[in-house]
Amino acid sequence: MSQDVMELSAEEQDVFKTSAFLQELVKQVRAQDTYGTWEGKSDAVVLADFIVTKEQRKQMPIIGDPDPDVIWRIERFYNAVGLALERQTGLIAGPMIKIGHEGFGRLLMTTGRLVVISKTLRDVHRFGFETYVKLAEAGDKTIGEAIGWIEKHPDVARA
Amino acid sequence: MSQDVMELSAEEQDVFKTSAFLQELVKQVRAQDTYGTWEGKSDAVVLADFIVTKEQRKQMPIIGDPDPDVIWRIERFYNAVGLALERQTGLIAGPMIKIGHEGFGRLLMTTGRLVVISKTLRDVHRFGFETYVKLAEAGDKTIGEAIGWIEKHPDVARA
Repeated sequence: MSQDVMELSAEEQDVFKTSAFLQELVKQVRAQDTYGTWEGKSDAVVLADFIVTKEQRKQMPIIGDPDPDVIWRIERFYNAVGLALERQTGLIAGPMIKIGHEGFGRLLMTTGRLVVISKTLRDVHRFGFETYVKLAEAGDKTIGEAIGWIEKHPDVARA
Repeated sequence: MSQDVMELSAEEQDVFKTSAFLQELVKQVRAQDTYGTWEGKSDAVVLADFIVTKEQRKQMPIIGDPDPDVIWRIERFYNAVGLALERQTGLIAGPMIKIGHEGFGRLLMTTGRLVVISKTLRDVHRFGFETYVKLAEAGDKTIGEAIGWIEKHPDVARA
């Protein structure tokens, strides 16, 4: 990760400006940059490790414990979802993630007494997205679904 | 734990017959008895490790990682709550427990889209109850509270 900037397509440049999720994720990751490693680097570079191409996926072993860096990225992903959710609804959304040794896990995100996201995490070893556009879509879609649940049960989300 | 039976007060004998939670907990613990260690032992003996007197509490260190046996007991406790809940409501209730290195943790139990139990676990190292009666009360109270939430939001609990 010696690069400071990356060449992005017009669509990719666009998604960094329009995706509420992607902006939150960049903030999340930069906030953990204790040593200033990412200063002066573009947002795309900061999120580079979230991108896993098909070719890379194939080469990733799925045995043994998932890499702590992967778990860290999954946590950042869902923290960003939670913070974007909070920004849009005013409700605090906390993720709870539990990942076992085999790369399977479970994720719950709740606001009040409502489960806004419930997911089985599979294939944790290979967590990643083919492109920035797909990363943004995945995050924004998750946020949208969570908001759908809050709109459906506003009293429980505030209980 | 070489004893086969324990002397119990009348109140204690009673609680083993009346507490839905305690009966479920005994089943939970016996179900894990792969080597038959608890065969022929009374229910009170099987649950003996859940009892921690005030004197014992004082002597328990609360530094370092909580003992795996303690975590195992916490899991049995909340699994028993979940199973008793299922028996009484017909709804599947799954606990999700996450315990950190410092003995703090979080527990969520959900049915459908409803959070029926949400707890911060403190002092995990010293998890235990002074008497069988208090153990039963704690479990049955937790079940009662969860049922209260289900009755309040039956549609969300079935979502």
